[in-house]
Amino acid sequence: MSMKQSAVIAPSILSADFARLGEDTQAVLDAGGDWVHFDVMDNHYVPNLTFGPMICKALRNYGITAPIDVHLMVEPVDELALAFAGAGASGISFHPEATRHVDRTISLIKEAGCKAGVVLNPATPLDSISCLLGKIDMILLMSVNPGFGGQKFIPYVMDKIRQARAIIDDTGRDVRLQVDGGVDVDNIGELWEAGCDTFVSGSAIFGSGDYARTIARMNAEIDSLG
Amino acid sequence: MSMKQSAVIAPSILSADFARLGEDTQAVLDAGGDWVHFDVMDNHYVPNLTFGPMICKALRNYGITAPIDVHLMVEPVDELALAFAGAGASGISFHPEATRHVDRTISLIKEAGCKAGVVLNPATPLDSISCLLGKIDMILLMSVNPGFGGQKFIPYVMDKIRQARAIIDDTGRDVRLQVDGGVDVDNIGELWEAGCDTFVSGSAIFGSGDYARTIARMNAEIDSLG
Amino acid sequence: MSMKQSAVIAPSILSADFARLGEDTQAVLDAGGDWVHFDVMDNHYVPNLTFGPMICKALRNYGITAPIDVHLMVEPVDELALAFAGAGASGISFHPEATRHVDRTISLIKEAGCKAGVVLNPATPLDSISCLLGKIDMILLMSVNPGFGGQKFIPYVMDKIRQARAIIDDTGRDVRLQVDGGVDVDNIGELWEAGCDTFVSGSAIFGSGDYARTIARMNAEIDSLG
Amino acid sequence: MSMKQSAVIAPSILSADFARLGEDTQAVLDAGGDWVHFDVMDNHYVPNLTFGPMICKALRNYGITAPIDVHLMVEPVDELALAFAGAGASGISFHPEATRHVDRTISLIKEAGCKAGVVLNPATPLDSISCLLGKIDMILLMSVNPGFGGQKFIPYVMDKIRQARAIIDDTGRDVRLQVDGGVDVDNIGELWEAGCDTFVSGSAIFGSGDYARTIARMNAEIDSLG
Amino acid sequence: MSMKQSAVIAPSILSADFARLGEDTQAVLDAGGDWVHFDVMDNHYVPNLTFGPMICKALRNYGITAPIDVHLMVEPVDELALAFAGAGASGISFHPEATRHVDRTISLIKEAGCKAGVVLNPATPLDSISCLLGKIDMILLMSVNPGFGGQKFIPYVMDKIRQARAIIDDTGRDVRLQVDGGVDVDNIGELWEAGCDTFVSGSAIFGSGDYARTIARMNAEIDSLG
Amino acid sequence: MSMKQSAVIAPSILSADFARLGEDTQAVLDAGGDWVHFDVMDNHYVPNLTFGPMICKALRNYGITAPIDVHLMVEPVDELALAFAGAGASGISFHPEATRHVDRTISLIKEAGCKAGVVLNPATPLDSISCLLGKIDMILLMSVNPGFGGQKFIPYVMDKIRQARAIIDDTGRDVRLQVDGGVDVDNIGELWEAGCDTFVSGSAIFGSGDYARTIARMNAEIDSLG
Repeated sequence: MSMKQSAVIAPSILSADFARLGEDTQAVLDAGGDWVHFDVMDNHYVPNLTFGPMICKALRNYGITAPIDVHLMVEPVDELALAFAGAGASGISFHPEATRHVDRTISLIKEAGCKAGVVLNPATPLDSISCLLGKIDMILLMSVNPGFGGQKFIPYVMDKIRQARAIIDDTGRDVRLQVDGGVDVDNIGELWEAGCDTFVSGSAIFGSGDYARTIARMNAEIDSLG
Repeated sequence: MSMKQSAVIAPSILSADFARLGEDTQAVLDAGGDWVHFDVMDNHYVPNLTFGPMICKALRNYGITAPIDVHLMVEPVDELALAFAGAGASGISFHPEATRHVDRTISLIKEAGCKAGVVLNPATPLDSISCLLGKIDMILLMSVNPGFGGQKFIPYVMDKIRQARAIIDDTGRDVRLQVDGGVDVDNIGELWEAGCDTFVSGSAIFGSGDYARTIARMNAEIDSLG
Repeated sequence: MSMKQSAVIAPSILSADFARLGEDTQAVLDAGGDWVHFDVMDNHYVPNLTFGPMICKALRNYGITAPIDVHLMVEPVDELALAFAGAGASGISFHPEATRHVDRTISLIKEAGCKAGVVLNPATPLDSISCLLGKIDMILLMSVNPGFGGQKFIPYVMDKIRQARAIIDDTGRDVRLQVDGGVDVDNIGELWEAGCDTFVSGSAIFGSGDYARTIARMNAEIDSLG
Repeated sequence: MSMKQSAVIAPSILSADFARLGEDTQAVLDAGGDWVHFDVMDNHYVPNLTFGPMICKALRNYGITAPIDVHLMVEPVDELALAFAGAGASGISFHPEATRHVDRTISLIKEAGCKAGVVLNPATPLDSISCLLGKIDMILLMSVNPGFGGQKFIPYVMDKIRQARAIIDDTGRDVRLQVDGGVDVDNIGELWEAGCDTFVSGSAIFGSGDYARTIARMNAEIDSLG
Repeated sequence: MSMKQSAVIAPSILSADFARLGEDTQAVLDAGGDWVHFDVMDNHYVPNLTFGPMICKALRNYGITAPIDVHLMVEPVDELALAFAGAGASGISFHPEATRHVDRTISLIKEAGCKAGVVLNPATPLDSISCLLGKIDMILLMSVNPGFGGQKFIPYVMDKIRQARAIIDDTGRDVRLQVDGGVDVDNIGELWEAGCDTFVSGSAIFGSGDYARTIARMNAEIDSLG
Repeated sequence: MSMKQSAVIAPSILSADFARLGEDTQAVLDAGGDWVHFDVMDNHYVPNLTFGPMICKALRNYGITAPIDVHLMVEPVDELALAFAGAGASGISFHPEATRHVDRTISLIKEAGCKAGVVLNPATPLDSISCLLGKIDMILLMSVNPGFGGQKFIPYVMDKIRQARAIIDDTGRDVRLQVDGGVDVDNIGELWEAGCDTFVSGSAIFGSGDYARTIARMNAEIDSLG
């Protein structure tokens, strides 16, 4: 039985206008974005520094009520995960290799009231999270290398998506399958068919002239496939 | 001969509204702020993650033309310093103990077209930068421990400011003396008299009801002392 | 063919009285404890510091002759493993992710005259040690996150114990299967049935009023299942 | 004006019998020891692992009421310092180079109700702590390299003791001057004359046949010099 | 279908005479060596420091035109891999656990014009590289622990070689299977039969009196097995 | 009284031909070079990897008997220093900030039969080694940032050389004062006058057409100043 969830489009604000972040975030939500996606980089797990919990709090204070979906590209994980939970995050995903005690990190996130996800780099096998399938709320498969700009969807990740779908379905649990990297109108249908139900997209939405039209086209691609 | 420069008020945007950052930054500049101060934290040099070069670029794109004065509470320093230079920073200060090759880091910053400063924690002696006095553009003395909130001005730093003023005057060079931590209307006069010419202030300005009145009062305290 | 060994109860002295450690250790051995279990933490692999090789030597000097079974929650591993071997340890187990050269660490331990074990955190798959099954003397499955207090047995580890038992039996080698975390009189029978043969227990023994009665009840649970 | 305090002998329990630690600690106190000295090593700041806060708590539970004087040879410092404060430590000393935010570490220790000291390795200049003289309660000068056994008193430290005494006297504050490494009956008089008032001694006391006689001889050496 | 490639003997210059490296390298190539193998150690990934890109450049300047096959026992990987590519390397292999972004490291090496390989320590399972089989040019299986001298071929690696051969054949791609550690005339035939096609050998060649005779015997062993 | 020693020219083999290292090293010694200087980089203390102890041993085996003067740009220091001592080094210098226990590192080097030096980067104050003046055999002042190519002599180091000379003379001990970075025929006289007695020079010698003529001109500059 497929455990695929209803489709979610999660625009990454990494591509938004940070001088008008409240307004731009609200605009992308008004245009049909389902979740607000955060790409948090600490210049250690990845070679770039983006933003931390204060941005989450600022958006909540501004009045953003949509789910805030935080992807932590940081090491170590625990303290920052708790800080994001305290700042209003809804879900927090992390790279298992960036924390020594993976089960505990998941527990911390869940006890703080957030959904917990694990993120796999393109080269990381699905087997590495086999013990966690009964506990996590989301698997995020990276289809580019995190933290570097200007990359295309890595083709060999498509197979991994199919395997992940099968693994999730075997659990019978509501575990979302998210993909991040090179997602756009042209490949979102294939990704949905392969088994993803949650789609991160940054420049493909914020870089388009018309957020609403782009998101609508993404949803149309998905809907056309049932 | 005193090398003290004209007074500069540098509001720290750490206390600004990040949902409306362009607008709030412009407001504090219109209210009399001289420089825009950045508190960049990487969750390694200090236990907090704030924001990176993308915020600098966003403010430049928004139209902010005032000097952007970046305090890097990060380790290592070099790559991120270059990223800030590329994103429009005017000056970049760093903690010498956070980089292996201090002279080289200063050279990198200056070759990238920025002013270069070194930052001393409350407990770090002035002697530690004695070789650099002929090369740097600013000394930033921390009067609280960087990266932690809710701290008061540490009293023993006042003596260090006086010593730093004497050391700078001996060089005969235009080296600014900046102070950061617990600076407000009540102590800015004493800090100016002790030898500071550049003042970082976050919540004392952004947390006041009236940016312009607060900055005017700060400047009045300084002016009253000549 | 089952390679399950005769049951061993290994009281963890982490819960003993360290002001009277020789006496308390002897008491728990007199009460039926088979091995003395050491929980060695270095405040790096886990966020706590407990004790090092000097405690091992002190117990040997005191006259403790029972096997001392050392669980290293430290990184790196090699030097400390050798120090414990020199201090009188009988067996040494370590976390493979805490050493760069796992095969070599096992060889060092064995060449020093000790049994060598590998420890898997709750989230670490059994596959990660597939190359080592012909070389190790024990697998320790953590049923709580190491280094943190007050945790309960993590239910999903029960399946992993069954899988580990099958894997060990396939080797046809005398490899012990040890479990650590939340082990008590109530679940020791189920753990034995699932395939464990070596049981670490700290507060359940030392926190009980009567060491001998607790250990006897544990053994009775096991014996009742054949 | 000399700020030298009354002499304190602080036997290091590193040389005590850890199988009978409560008894042996009480014995050395009954024999005239003033403080109980802890040498805490984490296998990172120094290449050895000794013991952590649990030993402090065990001695307090045993009934030891003398001051417990903790020398942390660990990095980082803050969390473990707080753990020792919570376990009953009276004073906590640390190496400044092992923490990023030295002023803050001192504040944490003092806010937790303990005396705060800083420790200088043989090669570390006194200048490195010049900003801290108004805040600390003790300076510990290492006269051997910490963490390694079998070393003799390093002769060049004698000059440093004299300089430290002068620096402390200039402050007019009650700052103890402690020495650790190769202290015995033969040199304690010279150390007292040079300006030390607090003496760590491990094997010279615990390795002697008669704790009381050794401590009495140490005190006699000091008393003979006024 | 077997994807085994034609046999390649890659003498490791770690055992050559570094005072006459150009001459000795040319001699081993004239004697029938196919590739020049580099064992690059940085004293961090392994406890030894050997040599870096400057040696590669020196050999190219000397006139060595054979493939230079670089095994990086270093962490991190990316910058040094690029330096070797710039210095004339033909192929670069690295340990996946020594880089955070494995897919990206492979891409960097290939974009720099080199073949890319991944190296597995004796204890590392083949599963750990399952995502990469469509992208890499070589798998290097270590049959000793890298960075330590005087080791013999680890017997359990023989099975891993057979599994790796099956996995490579399944891909239908030209992926070389290299073995390094304890390879000599006596076992090269068995290694070829097990599925290796690329053989690193250091002291067995350079330590023999006659490079040509040794390499000829190695090739004869292989040829005799078809 | 000046403790300046007789002048020593130490050609750095970093600029030699590593394909013919024995021959090229002998040539530079025959041309008047006094010591053989090693620039050892580990890609951690500096961003480059050069060569390790095996090169030292190869030169000794080749018959080089001149002093081999090793500058370790590595962290940590101790193990590699011992390896160089075992490989035939005559003197070993290290950066104090790269080792935790500076006094001990010096002792290890001396106990291994080598001269011990400390190296100061351009920005590191002389005060940082004030405790060590009675124990070291050489101070090496870097006049460029170590590990990066193509740099010129940093002018502000000239003052530091004069201060170091004064400090050494105060000790009355035979401590050499070495300079490294941008040393050539044009400035060696000024460096000698400022107080250096030991000169590292790489490309200025190896890059000249005539080693003997260049070294002779260097010595002539020194001799002309007495």
